[in-house]
Amino acid sequence: MTTYEFDAATRVQPIDGGVYASEIHDGWDIHGNANGGYLLALAVQAMRAACGRPDPVTVTAHYLSPGKAGPAETITEVLKSGRRFATVSGSLRQGGREVIRVLGTFGDLAGAHPDEPRLIRAEPPDLPPFEVARSRELADDAPSLMGKVDVRLHPDDDKFATGRPSGSPVQRGWFGFADGRDIDPLSLLLACDAFPPTVFNLELEPGWVPTLELTVHLRAVPSPGPVRCLFETRFLQNGFFEEDGEVWDSEGRLVAQSRQLALTPLRPPTS
Amino acid sequence: MTTYEFDAATRVQPIDGGVYASEIHDGWDIHGNANGGYLLALAVQAMRAACGRPDPVTVTAHYLSPGKAGPAETITEVLKSGRRFATVSGSLRQGGREVIRVLGTFGDLAGAHPDEPRLIRAEPPDLPPFEVARSRELADDAPSLMGKVDVRLHPDDDKFATGRPSGSPVQRGWFGFADGRDIDPLSLLLACDAFPPTVFNLELEPGWVPTLELTVHLRAVPSPGPVRCLFETRFLQNGFFEEDGEVWDSEGRLVAQSRQLALTPLRPPTS
Repeated sequence: MTTYEFDAATRVQPIDGGVYASEIHDGWDIHGNANGGYLLALAVQAMRAACGRPDPVTVTAHYLSPGKAGPAETITEVLKSGRRFATVSGSLRQGGREVIRVLGTFGDLAGAHPDEPRLIRAEPPDLPPFEVARSRELADDAPSLMGKVDVRLHPDDDKFATGRPSGSPVQRGWFGFADGRDIDPLSLLLACDAFPPTVFNLELEPGWVPTLELTVHLRAVPSPGPVRCLFETRFLQNGFFEEDGEVWDSEGRLVAQSRQLALTPLRPPTS
Repeated sequence: MTTYEFDAATRVQPIDGGVYASEIHDGWDIHGNANGGYLLALAVQAMRAACGRPDPVTVTAHYLSPGKAGPAETITEVLKSGRRFATVSGSLRQGGREVIRVLGTFGDLAGAHPDEPRLIRAEPPDLPPFEVARSRELADDAPSLMGKVDVRLHPDDDKFATGRPSGSPVQRGWFGFADGRDIDPLSLLLACDAFPPTVFNLELEPGWVPTLELTVHLRAVPSPGPVRCLFETRFLQNGFFEEDGEVWDSEGRLVAQSRQLALTPLRPPTS
């Protein structure tokens, strides 16, 4: 029986009193710092265990310090456990240092309401078919994360990698796992933070783009197969920019929406 | 010296151990339940006092139980206090019952970076001038909140009130205070939740629209005068819809972005 890498990397072990032990796995990082979507998925894995609900309907993470490969624990607190939803706080820590704080409301999206009113005022991004889209070439300095996921960017959005940013702060592309694992609600959290920053397509000095906060709304349980993603920035001012994401499944259904607030590119810290 | 109503209604009194006493004022409610933006502002008032930073750069509230007029307290915990930002958790409670849980990162937006790169890919909503825009007529069953704020809807978006919803899940309009108080960062949190729900302009059975979660990003300190707001829904499915907001100040600058996840209209609970 195959164990997919993402499942191994997000395993949690209940200790007691709402504390869950886990391990931040090597290889899900950007130059040594664990990816923010991966850290969110790890905390959410503990939080959904704590409340016994399968799906993170809406989760928000604030990023406090870098996550490093090695042991970690998530301290959970179930704030409310209602009929349809439970709200949970989660604190992912390493050696007494808080890495991220998460606040989330959980439920069961499979128990959705097919007769509910429905209105969709958008379409999935137009992409070359997954099979013909090119996986990103992994340069020597590519983040390790890119070896775990299978991100296939729209050819118009990939040009920053060769020093010709498109000028448009957009990233579109397919998201899947390198080992073929299917996309489920937990991995949508990773999908929402696994693309190159939108601002890499602007004529800015490239550099470190720290995320202050990431919120993901899960809107449906995805069908099997890679998902189509769109990330877009409309407002870059005062040293901040937002990145809005949409994730669409293979049946053309919106399955996640995300927004993060990040700082405009800075040189990496010298320490 | 004038005390404006919003200032009186968001006053907090430090007790000790990070606890702040306050009072949920009557009149900021929707049929007896305090407005979600008002509750967020009340918790944030305590949280910014706790960390000593003026501006809620990004705050997220999860709504757990109705807030009622009367005494309340906010228990704060400063998770991190860094050079530029501090991250704080806040729990607004009444009589031992948790009303909202808030997670926020605070800083000083006035100390922004005028030389930073700037890119704006949107424009403020086109509205009749504030002076000629019509304040909403307050029907007998209008929410009390509407007597505290001065919301002047775009004439195309106001038709739901007379039983002719526009068919477009959008609300645009001016936001100010009835007593003329200026808009500051704290009151932008109220602005982001003070408009009629976007879905009132759809042909749905009107009713209760409970918010699960509201996130506001503060993008600049507003200039004096009423602000222009746009709220919009693109995805209504599975019993949920998002409402995305933009708030623009009198100088045409984006000062806040918001997103909330809410449940499609339900009849009010019969209890």
